Amino acid sequence: MTDNKDKIFNQIKNKLIVSCQALPDEPLHSSFIMGKMAYAAYLGGAGGIRANSIEDIREIKKNVKLPIIGIIKKVYEGSEVFITPTENEVESLYNEGVDIIATDATKRIRPDGTTISEMFPRLREKYPDQIFMADCSTYEEAKEAYELGFDCLGTTLCGYTEYTKDRKLPDLELIGRLTKDFDIPVIAEGGIWAPEDIKKVFSLGVHAAVVGSAITRPMEITKRFVNAIVEVVDSGTCVK
Amino acid sequence: MTDNKDKIFNQIKNKLIVSCQALPDEPLHSSFIMGKMAYAAYLGGAGGIRANSIEDIREIKKNVKLPIIGIIKKVYEGSEVFITPTENEVESLYNEGVDIIATDATKRIRPDGTTISEMFPRLREKYPDQIFMADCSTYEEAKEAYELGFDCLGTTLCGYTEYTKDRKLPDLELIGRLTKDFDIPVIAEGGIWAPEDIKKVFSLGVHAAVVGSAITRPMEITKRFVNAIVEVVDSGTCVK
Repeated sequence: MTDNKDKIFNQIKNKLIVSCQALPDEPLHSSFIMGKMAYAAYLGGAGGIRANSIEDIREIKKNVKLPIIGIIKKVYEGSEVFITPTENEVESLYNEGVDIIATDATKRIRPDGTTISEMFPRLREKYPDQIFMADCSTYEEAKEAYELGFDCLGTTLCGYTEYTKDRKLPDLELIGRLTKDFDIPVIAEGGIWAPEDIKKVFSLGVHAAVVGSAITRPMEITKRFVNAIVEVVDSGTCVK
Repeated sequence: MTDNKDKIFNQIKNKLIVSCQALPDEPLHSSFIMGKMAYAAYLGGAGGIRANSIEDIREIKKNVKLPIIGIIKKVYEGSEVFITPTENEVESLYNEGVDIIATDATKRIRPDGTTISEMFPRLREKYPDQIFMADCSTYEEAKEAYELGFDCLGTTLCGYTEYTKDRKLPDLELIGRLTKDFDIPVIAEGGIWAPEDIKKVFSLGVHAAVVGSAITRPMEITKRFVNAIVEVVDSGTCVK
């Protein structure tokens, strides 16, 4: 591993990475707001930011000097792979300059008809010093990513592929197997809603963890509180 | 109670009220962002918004048509009372038009040297049809507010006065006593961080509950996750 890769991984070791994303159909969609969100995360002690799109990443860089995991979400017709799905998005992120580029590393067919095992060797050759994070949904996908030469493994897509949609998140069994079996950093991501969740994933030996919705998606947080109210009111157990 | 007061209280019954505030020293300080936060809360199912300052309230009204609990936080030298502390702030909120005006209803001396028991009768006479919410810190303060003629009781300041700073929040004992003893709406506010907390306060019979930081203050949420990581890493129990 190069010195620069070491440096970045040391910077995020045992740190919280806050995902600051709001897609065009979300109420907070705005690079200005994502920049402020990243700044709030920084002030709160975050050690890194995960962000989507060149526009958001540029704005976030103006607000904080933390390592950035960059992605580009792009939906192509006919493929379910949308997190940095093709070499075009990787190239954009590389040219913008982000510390870590994350890409879908599931077994699913990508928009150009290839799989990650065909795409990644080309990326590795073209960008040998770039840190790549594999967004996986299963143990087998993580193993494949490890063998392909990814620099770190993420559980980002566990629960979000057709074949993992029933998993309870965070998937502690998966996270524990990954930290046990692979000697590269494992980054827990997906379904971390409470401080108790994050204690569990760190006790399993992850290098860092990404939390998004629980911090930066007020609509999603509101829904959880509203659902809790509906549940208790409908149960008929309230004293008034 | 007037028909209009009934209407507002029916609108917020069994609802989540999301507090959308960012003071000048907070990273998200921006009326534009608070308007978007309120919109996100609305999309998530919130039944009301609590907001600070005329500027934020105006922007929020452009974004959502939900009942608003309005406050003006203003620090005056020599007094610890800062939530809508004097008749001037009440007048500003009344002139702007908010469904509910909340004011500090603790026993503490206000900036003009009076107490709530001196100020409130004047407010009640001047604005008979305005709904007033009493932000209290103790049972005795809530009892006083009830007797003064406040329209609803909030636990907002429990934990935030010198004589309640050791209370564990949300203070379920206090909330339970208020809903049991007073026949006006009790609004739980303060220290509600998780859906489990809100289930508990609704099971005690509150009319509505206000959640702020857990939804709209990403810096504070980040701190809780970061503290959890530090705790587990320092404990030395992680497998790596």
